[in-house]
Amino acid sequence: MDLYEALYTTRAMRRMKQDPIPDEVIRKIFDAAIRSPSGGNTQNWRFVAVTDPATLVHLGELYAQAWEILLSTVYSGRRGDEQTERMLKSSQWLADHFEEVPLVVLAYHRNDPSGASVFPAVWSLQLAARGLGIGSTLTTILGHFRHQEVADLLGAPLDKGWTNAAAVTFGYPLGRWAVPQRRPAHQVVFAESWGVQPSWTIDEPLWP
Amino acid sequence: MDLYEALYTTRAMRRMKQDPIPDEVIRKIFDAAIRSPSGGNTQNWRFVAVTDPATLVHLGELYAQAWEILLSTVYSGRRGDEQTERMLKSSQWLADHFEEVPLVVLAYHRNDPSGASVFPAVWSLQLAARGLGIGSTLTTILGHFRHQEVADLLGAPLDKGWTNAAAVTFGYPLGRWAVPQRRPAHQVVFAESWGVQPSWTIDEPLWP
Repeated sequence: MDLYEALYTTRAMRRMKQDPIPDEVIRKIFDAAIRSPSGGNTQNWRFVAVTDPATLVHLGELYAQAWEILLSTVYSGRRGDEQTERMLKSSQWLADHFEEVPLVVLAYHRNDPSGASVFPAVWSLQLAARGLGIGSTLTTILGHFRHQEVADLLGAPLDKGWTNAAAVTFGYPLGRWAVPQRRPAHQVVFAESWGVQPSWTIDEPLWP
Repeated sequence: MDLYEALYTTRAMRRMKQDPIPDEVIRKIFDAAIRSPSGGNTQNWRFVAVTDPATLVHLGELYAQAWEILLSTVYSGRRGDEQTERMLKSSQWLADHFEEVPLVVLAYHRNDPSGASVFPAVWSLQLAARGLGIGSTLTTILGHFRHQEVADLLGAPLDKGWTNAAAVTFGYPLGRWAVPQRRPAHQVVFAESWGVQPSWTIDEPLWP
Protein backbone atom coordinates (compact mmCIF):
# COMPACT_ATOMS: atom_id res chain seq x y z
CA MET A 1 0.00 0.00 0.00
CA ASP A 2 1.05 3.53 -0.75
CA LEU A 3 2.33 5.42 2.29
CA TYR A 4 0.17 8.46 1.65
CA GLU A 5 -2.95 6.35 1.27
CA ALA A 6 -2.27 4.87 4.70
CA LEU A 7 -1.56 8.25 6.30
CA TYR A 8 -4.73 9.74 4.84
CA THR A 9 -7.18 6.91 5.42
CA THR A 10 -6.25 5.34 8.76
CA ARG A 11 -9.20 6.88 10.52
CA ALA A 12 -10.56 5.48 13.78
CA MET A 13 -12.36 2.28 12.75
CA ARG A 14 -14.58 1.37 15.68
CA ARG A 15 -17.04 -0.99 13.99
CA MET A 16 -15.33 -4.22 13.06
CA LYS A 17 -16.02 -7.83 12.21
CA GLN A 18 -15.37 -10.64 14.64
CA ASP A 19 -13.14 -12.49 12.16
CA PRO A 20 -9.89 -13.42 13.89
CA ILE A 21 -6.62 -11.80 12.90
CA PRO A 22 -4.05 -14.45 11.97
CA ASP A 23 -0.90 -14.80 14.06
CA GLU A 24 1.18 -14.17 10.96
CA VAL A 25 -0.48 -10.78 10.57
CA ILE A 26 0.08 -9.92 14.22
CA ARG A 27 3.73 -10.85 13.84
CA LYS A 28 4.08 -8.65 10.75
CA ILE A 29 2.53 -5.53 12.20
CA PHE A 30 4.60 -5.74 15.38
CA ASP A 31 7.83 -6.22 13.46
CA ALA A 32 7.05 -3.00 11.58
CA ALA A 33 5.94 -1.12 14.71
CA ILE A 34 9.12 -1.70 16.69
CA ARG A 35 11.19 0.07 14.00
CA SER A 36 9.82 3.37 15.26
CA PRO A 37 11.95 5.73 17.34
CA SER A 38 12.11 6.00 21.12
CA GLY A 39 14.08 8.43 23.26
CA GLY A 40 17.70 7.29 23.36
CA ASN A 41 16.56 4.16 21.52
CA THR A 42 15.59 2.71 24.90
CA GLN A 43 12.59 0.80 23.49
CA ASN A 44 10.89 0.95 26.86
CA TRP A 45 7.74 -0.51 25.41
CA ARG A 46 5.80 -3.70 25.98
CA PHE A 47 2.65 -4.83 24.26
CA VAL A 48 0.09 -7.34 25.43
CA ALA A 49 -1.82 -8.75 22.48
CA VAL A 50 -5.16 -10.04 23.70
CA THR A 51 -7.29 -12.38 21.59
CA ASP A 52 -8.57 -14.71 24.31
CA PRO A 53 -12.38 -14.44 24.60
CA ALA A 54 -12.45 -14.65 28.41
CA THR A 55 -9.87 -11.88 28.77
CA LEU A 56 -11.76 -9.78 26.23
CA VAL A 57 -14.97 -10.16 28.24
CA HIS A 58 -13.19 -8.78 31.31
CA LEU A 59 -11.56 -6.02 29.33
CA GLY A 60 -14.94 -5.20 27.80
CA GLU A 61 -16.51 -4.81 31.23
CA LEU A 62 -13.73 -2.47 32.31
CA TYR A 63 -13.96 -0.58 29.04
CA ALA A 64 -17.71 -0.09 29.46
CA GLN A 65 -17.14 1.32 32.94
CA ALA A 66 -14.44 3.67 31.68
CA TRP A 67 -16.65 4.75 28.81
CA GLU A 68 -19.50 5.63 31.18
CA ILE A 69 -17.11 7.77 33.21
CA LEU A 70 -15.92 9.56 30.08
CA LEU A 71 -19.48 10.16 28.89
CA SER A 72 -20.56 11.62 32.21
CA THR A 73 -17.53 13.88 32.55
CA VAL A 74 -15.66 14.99 29.43
CA TYR A 75 -18.62 14.66 27.07
CA SER A 76 -21.37 15.90 29.36
CA GLY A 77 -20.86 19.46 28.13
CA ARG A 78 -19.93 18.66 24.54
CA ARG A 79 -23.11 17.14 23.11
CA GLY A 80 -25.04 18.39 20.15
CA ASP A 81 -22.97 19.02 17.07
CA GLU A 82 -23.29 16.51 14.31
CA GLN A 83 -19.67 15.38 14.08
CA THR A 84 -19.44 14.79 17.84
CA GLU A 85 -22.71 12.86 17.90
CA ARG A 86 -21.54 10.66 15.03
CA MET A 87 -18.28 9.94 16.84
CA LEU A 88 -20.13 9.20 20.09
CA LYS A 89 -22.46 6.82 18.30
CA SER A 90 -19.60 4.79 16.89
CA SER A 91 -17.74 4.99 20.21
CA GLN A 92 -20.85 3.65 21.92
CA TRP A 93 -20.87 0.80 19.43
CA LEU A 94 -17.30 -0.03 20.39
CA ALA A 95 -18.16 0.10 24.10
CA ASP A 96 -21.12 -2.22 23.50
CA HIS A 97 -19.09 -4.68 21.40
CA PHE A 98 -15.64 -4.51 22.98
CA GLU A 99 -15.61 -8.20 23.90
CA GLU A 100 -16.17 -9.10 20.24
CA VAL A 101 -13.08 -7.26 19.03
CA PRO A 102 -10.71 -9.92 17.67
CA LEU A 103 -7.49 -8.26 18.87
CA VAL A 104 -6.84 -5.66 21.54
CA VAL A 105 -3.28 -4.48 22.09
CA LEU A 106 -2.44 -2.96 25.46
CA ALA A 107 0.65 -0.77 25.07
CA TYR A 108 2.82 -0.08 28.12
CA HIS A 109 5.80 2.23 28.51
CA ARG A 110 8.09 3.51 31.24
CA ASN A 111 10.44 6.45 31.74
CA ASP A 112 8.45 8.20 29.04
CA PRO A 113 6.47 10.99 30.68
CA SER A 114 5.56 12.71 27.42
CA GLY A 115 4.48 9.66 25.44
CA ALA A 116 7.05 10.48 22.75
CA SER A 117 8.60 7.02 23.04
CA VAL A 118 5.50 4.89 22.72
CA PHE A 119 2.93 6.62 20.51
CA PRO A 120 5.05 6.51 17.35
CA ALA A 121 5.18 2.72 17.82
CA VAL A 122 1.45 2.54 18.56
CA TRP A 123 0.63 4.59 15.48
CA SER A 124 3.03 2.54 13.35
CA LEU A 125 1.20 -0.56 14.54
CA GLN A 126 -2.08 0.94 13.37
CA LEU A 127 -0.63 2.04 10.04
CA ALA A 128 0.96 -1.36 9.48
CA ALA A 129 -2.41 -2.96 10.16
CA ARG A 130 -4.08 -0.55 7.72
CA GLY A 131 -1.66 -1.76 5.07
CA LEU A 132 -3.08 -5.25 5.54
CA GLY A 133 -6.71 -4.12 5.46
CA ILE A 134 -7.21 -4.04 9.22
CA GLY A 135 -8.90 -1.17 11.01
CA SER A 136 -8.04 0.04 14.48
CA THR A 137 -8.94 2.57 17.14
CA LEU A 138 -6.57 4.14 19.61
CA THR A 139 -8.22 4.39 23.02
CA THR A 140 -6.76 5.61 26.29
CA ILE A 141 -9.68 5.44 28.71
CA LEU A 142 -8.79 2.02 30.14
CA GLY A 143 -5.46 3.41 31.28
CA HIS A 144 -7.04 6.61 32.56
CA PHE A 145 -9.92 5.11 34.50
CA ARG A 146 -9.16 1.42 35.08
CA HIS A 147 -5.36 1.31 35.22
CA GLN A 148 -5.01 -0.97 38.21
CA GLU A 149 -7.82 -3.30 37.19
CA VAL A 150 -6.37 -3.82 33.71
CA ALA A 151 -2.92 -4.42 35.18
CA ASP A 152 -4.37 -6.98 37.59
CA LEU A 153 -6.12 -8.74 34.73
CA LEU A 154 -3.01 -8.92 32.54
CA GLY A 155 -0.39 -9.24 35.26
CA ALA A 156 1.33 -6.00 34.28
CA PRO A 157 3.96 -5.00 36.87
CA LEU A 158 3.02 -1.40 37.63
CA ASP A 159 5.44 -1.50 40.56
CA LYS A 160 8.28 -1.73 38.05
CA GLY A 161 7.28 1.56 36.50
CA TRP A 162 5.20 0.33 33.58
CA THR A 163 2.26 2.53 32.63
CA ASN A 164 -0.52 1.76 30.22
CA ALA A 165 -0.41 4.21 27.33
CA ALA A 166 -3.22 2.84 25.18
CA ALA A 167 -5.56 0.02 24.34
CA VAL A 168 -5.83 -0.33 20.58
CA THR A 169 -8.64 -2.37 19.04
CA PHE A 170 -7.96 -4.15 15.75
CA GLY A 171 -10.29 -5.88 13.32
CA TYR A 172 -11.41 -6.18 9.74
CA PRO A 173 -13.61 -3.16 9.17
CA LEU A 174 -17.36 -2.95 8.92
CA GLY A 175 -17.08 0.72 8.03
CA ARG A 176 -15.34 2.04 4.94
CA TRP A 177 -11.98 3.68 4.59
CA ALA A 178 -12.11 7.39 3.91
CA VAL A 179 -10.12 10.57 4.35
CA PRO A 180 -11.28 12.12 7.63
CA GLN A 181 -12.24 15.77 7.66
CA ARG A 182 -9.97 17.88 9.79
CA ARG A 183 -9.41 21.51 10.52
CA PRO A 184 -7.24 22.60 7.57
CA ALA A 185 -3.51 22.51 8.09
CA HIS A 186 -3.02 26.23 7.43
CA GLN A 187 -5.11 26.95 10.54
CA VAL A 188 -2.98 24.82 12.86
CA VAL A 189 0.46 25.39 11.34
CA PHE A 190 2.24 28.65 12.02
CA ALA A 191 5.17 30.03 10.05
CA GLU A 192 8.17 31.02 12.16
CA SER A 193 6.09 32.37 15.09
CA TRP A 194 2.91 31.43 16.90
CA GLY A 195 -0.18 32.87 15.21
CA VAL A 196 1.48 33.67 11.88
CA GLN A 197 -0.32 31.94 9.01
CA PRO A 198 1.87 30.16 6.49
CA SER A 199 2.07 31.43 2.90
CA TRP A 200 -0.04 28.49 1.72
CA THR A 201 -3.59 27.33 2.30
CA ILE A 202 -5.32 24.01 1.66
CA ASP A 203 -8.90 23.85 0.38
CA GLU A 204 -9.21 20.12 -0.30
CA PRO A 205 -7.16 17.15 0.92
CA LEU A 206 -4.01 16.92 -1.22
CA TRP A 207 -4.48 13.16 -1.55
CA PRO A 208 -5.47 11.28 -3.64
CA MET B 1 6.48 5.05 -1.51
CA ASP B 2 5.40 1.77 -0.04
CA LEU B 3 3.94 2.04 3.45
CA TYR B 4 6.10 -0.73 4.87
CA GLU B 5 9.27 0.78 3.43
CA ALA B 6 8.44 4.01 5.26
CA LEU B 7 7.60 2.25 8.54
CA TYR B 8 10.83 0.22 8.41
CA THR B 9 13.28 2.87 7.29
CA THR B 10 12.22 6.12 8.98
CA ARG B 11 15.07 5.99 11.43
CA ALA B 12 16.28 9.07 13.27
CA MET B 13 18.19 11.05 10.63
CA ARG B 14 20.29 13.55 12.51
CA ARG B 15 22.85 14.46 9.87
CA MET B 16 21.25 16.47 7.13
CA LYS B 17 22.03 18.87 4.31
CA GLN B 18 21.30 22.57 4.54
CA ASP B 19 19.24 22.54 1.33
CA PRO B 20 15.92 24.27 2.01
CA ILE B 21 12.67 22.33 2.04
CA PRO B 22 10.19 23.86 -0.41
CA ASP B 23 6.96 25.33 0.92
CA GLU B 24 5.01 22.95 -1.30
CA VAL B 25 6.64 20.01 0.51
CA ILE B 26 5.90 21.51 3.93
CA ARG B 27 2.27 21.97 2.88
CA LYS B 28 2.03 18.36 1.72
CA ILE B 29 3.47 16.74 4.81
CA PHE B 30 1.26 18.77 7.14
CA ASP B 31 -1.88 17.96 5.17
CA ALA B 32 -1.06 14.27 5.63
CA ALA B 33 -0.13 14.65 9.30
CA ILE B 34 -3.39 16.26 10.39
CA ARG B 35 -5.35 13.19 9.21
CA SER B 36 -4.09 11.32 12.25
CA PRO B 37 -6.36 10.65 15.23
CA SER B 38 -6.70 12.69 18.41
CA GLY B 39 -8.79 12.00 21.46
CA GLY B 40 -12.39 12.91 20.72
CA ASN B 41 -11.10 14.33 17.42
CA THR B 42 -10.29 17.53 19.30
CA GLN B 43 -7.20 18.26 17.17
CA ASN B 44 -5.67 20.20 20.02
CA TRP B 45 -2.43 20.54 18.14
CA ARG B 46 -0.47 23.47 16.78
CA PHE B 47 2.78 23.38 14.87
CA VAL B 48 5.32 26.13 14.43
CA ALA B 49 7.39 25.53 11.31
CA VAL B 50 10.69 27.34 11.67
CA THR B 51 12.95 27.99 8.67
CA ASP B 52 14.13 31.51 9.53
CA PRO B 53 17.92 31.52 10.10
CA ALA B 54 17.82 33.98 13.02
CA THR B 55 15.18 31.92 14.86
CA LEU B 56 17.16 28.75 14.16
CA VAL B 57 20.27 30.31 15.70
CA HIS B 58 18.34 31.02 18.89
CA LEU B 59 16.75 27.58 18.89
CA GLY B 60 20.18 26.07 18.32
CA GLU B 61 21.59 27.83 21.37
CA LEU B 62 18.73 26.56 23.50
CA TYR B 63 19.08 23.08 22.03
CA ALA B 64 22.81 23.01 22.82
CA GLN B 65 22.04 23.95 26.43
CA ALA B 66 19.37 21.27 26.69
CA TRP B 67 21.70 18.71 25.13
CA GLU B 68 24.42 19.48 27.70
CA ILE B 69 21.89 18.94 30.50
CA LEU B 70 20.83 15.61 29.00
CA LEU B 71 24.43 14.47 28.58
CA SER B 72 25.33 15.29 32.16
CA THR B 73 22.24 13.65 33.63
CA VAL B 74 20.50 10.85 31.71
CA TYR B 75 23.57 9.77 29.77
CA SER B 76 26.18 10.19 32.47
CA GLY B 77 25.66 6.58 33.57
CA ARG B 78 24.92 5.06 30.19
CA ARG B 79 28.17 5.48 28.30
CA GLY B 80 30.23 2.76 26.75
CA ASP B 81 28.30 0.36 24.58
CA GLU B 82 28.80 0.73 20.87
CA GLN B 83 25.21 1.43 19.86
CA THR B 84 24.81 4.15 22.49
CA GLU B 85 28.10 5.78 21.54
CA ARG B 86 27.10 5.81 17.87
CA MET B 87 23.80 7.43 18.74
CA LEU B 88 25.50 9.99 20.99
CA LYS B 89 27.94 10.88 18.24
CA SER B 90 25.18 11.61 15.76
CA SER B 91 23.17 13.41 18.46
CA GLN B 92 26.23 15.55 19.17
CA TRP B 93 26.42 16.33 15.47
CA LEU B 94 22.81 17.54 15.58
CA ALA B 95 23.48 19.66 18.67
CA ASP B 96 26.51 21.22 16.94
CA HIS B 97 24.62 21.90 13.70
CA PHE B 98 21.11 22.65 14.90
CA GLU B 99 21.09 26.16 13.43
CA GLU B 100 21.83 24.70 9.99
CA VAL B 101 18.77 22.45 9.98
CA PRO B 102 16.51 23.73 7.18
CA LEU B 103 13.22 23.06 8.99
CA VAL B 104 12.40 22.57 12.65
CA VAL B 105 8.80 21.89 13.63
CA LEU B 106 7.79 22.68 17.19
CA ALA B 107 4.68 20.65 18.05
CA TYR B 108 2.36 21.88 20.79
CA HIS B 109 -0.67 20.24 22.35
CA ARG B 110 -3.11 20.81 25.20
CA ASN B 111 -5.53 18.73 27.24
CA ASP B 112 -3.45 15.74 26.21
CA PRO B 113 -1.60 14.51 29.29
CA SER B 114 -0.54 11.19 27.76
CA GLY B 115 0.67 12.47 24.40
CA ALA B 116 -1.78 10.15 22.62
CA SER B 117 -3.28 13.07 20.72
CA VAL B 118 -0.15 14.63 19.33
CA PHE B 119 2.48 11.98 18.71
CA PRO B 120 0.54 10.13 16.02
CA ALA B 121 0.43 13.45 14.12
CA VAL B 122 4.12 14.09 14.78
CA TRP B 123 5.06 10.63 13.59
CA SER B 124 2.80 10.95 10.53
CA LEU B 125 4.60 14.17 9.72
CA GLN B 126 7.92 12.33 9.84
CA LEU B 127 6.62 9.43 7.76
CA ALA B 128 5.09 11.80 5.21
CA ALA B 129 8.46 13.54 4.95
CA ARG B 130 10.19 10.18 4.51
CA GLY B 131 7.92 9.52 1.56
CA LEU B 132 9.38 12.63 -0.09
CA GLY B 133 12.98 11.73 0.69
CA ILE B 134 13.31 13.91 3.76
CA GLY B 135 14.87 12.72 6.99
CA SER B 136 13.83 13.81 10.46
CA THR B 137 14.57 13.39 14.14
CA LEU B 138 12.07 13.56 16.96
CA THR B 139 13.56 15.43 19.90
CA THR B 140 11.92 16.39 23.18
CA ILE B 141 14.73 18.02 25.16
CA LEU B 142 13.83 21.59 24.21
CA GLY B 143 10.42 21.10 25.81
CA HIS B 144 11.89 19.31 28.82
CA PHE B 145 14.71 21.73 29.61
CA ARG B 146 13.96 25.03 27.82
CA HIS B 147 10.17 25.14 27.70
CA GLN B 148 9.72 28.77 28.69
CA GLU B 149 12.62 30.05 26.62
CA VAL B 150 11.34 28.37 23.46
CA ALA B 151 7.84 29.67 24.11
CA ASP B 152 9.21 33.19 24.58
CA LEU B 153 11.12 32.92 21.32
CA LEU B 154 8.11 31.71 19.32
CA GLY B 155 5.37 33.55 21.17
CA ALA B 156 3.66 30.32 22.25
CA PRO B 157 0.89 31.05 24.79
CA LEU B 158 1.73 28.64 27.59
CA ASP B 159 -0.82 30.43 29.78
CA LYS B 160 -3.54 29.08 27.49
CA GLY B 161 -2.53 25.53 28.25
CA TRP B 162 -0.28 24.79 25.30
CA THR B 163 2.67 22.52 25.99
CA ASN B 164 5.57 21.72 23.74
CA ALA B 165 5.57 18.03 22.87
CA ALA B 166 8.48 17.87 20.47
CA ALA B 167 10.90 19.67 18.21
CA VAL B 168 11.36 17.72 15.01
CA THR B 169 14.26 18.47 12.70
CA PHE B 170 13.75 17.92 8.96
CA GLY B 171 16.22 17.89 6.10
CA TYR B 172 17.52 16.00 3.10
CA PRO B 173 19.70 13.27 4.55
CA LEU B 174 23.45 13.02 4.66
CA GLY B 175 23.14 9.54 6.14
CA ARG B 176 21.56 6.62 4.37
CA TRP B 177 18.17 5.02 4.91
CA ALA B 178 18.27 1.66 6.60
CA VAL B 179 16.21 -0.65 8.76
CA PRO B 180 17.18 0.09 12.37
CA GLN B 181 18.09 -2.80 14.62
CA ARG B 182 15.69 -3.27 17.48
CA ARG B 183 15.06 -5.74 20.22
CA PRO B 184 13.00 -8.42 18.42
CA ALA B 185 9.24 -8.08 18.60
CA HIS B 186 8.74 -11.46 20.26
CA GLN B 187 10.67 -10.14 23.28
CA VAL B 188 8.48 -7.09 23.77
CA VAL B 189 5.11 -8.51 22.75
CA PHE B 190 3.24 -10.74 25.15
CA ALA B 191 0.39 -13.08 24.28
CA GLU B 192 -2.72 -12.64 26.42
CA SER B 193 -0.82 -11.95 29.66
CA TRP B 194 2.31 -10.07 30.68
CA GLY B 195 5.44 -12.18 30.34
CA VAL B 196 3.93 -14.83 28.08
CA GLN B 197 5.89 -15.13 24.83
CA PRO B 198 3.85 -15.26 21.64
CA SER B 199 3.82 -18.42 19.54
CA TRP B 200 6.02 -16.74 16.92
CA THR B 201 9.55 -15.40 16.85
CA ILE B 202 11.35 -13.11 14.43
CA ASP B 203 14.98 -13.66 13.48
CA GLU B 204 15.38 -11.09 10.73
CA PRO B 205 13.31 -8.03 9.81
CA LEU B 206 10.27 -9.16 7.82
CA TRP B 207 10.81 -6.34 5.35
CA PRO B 208 11.95 -6.05 2.59
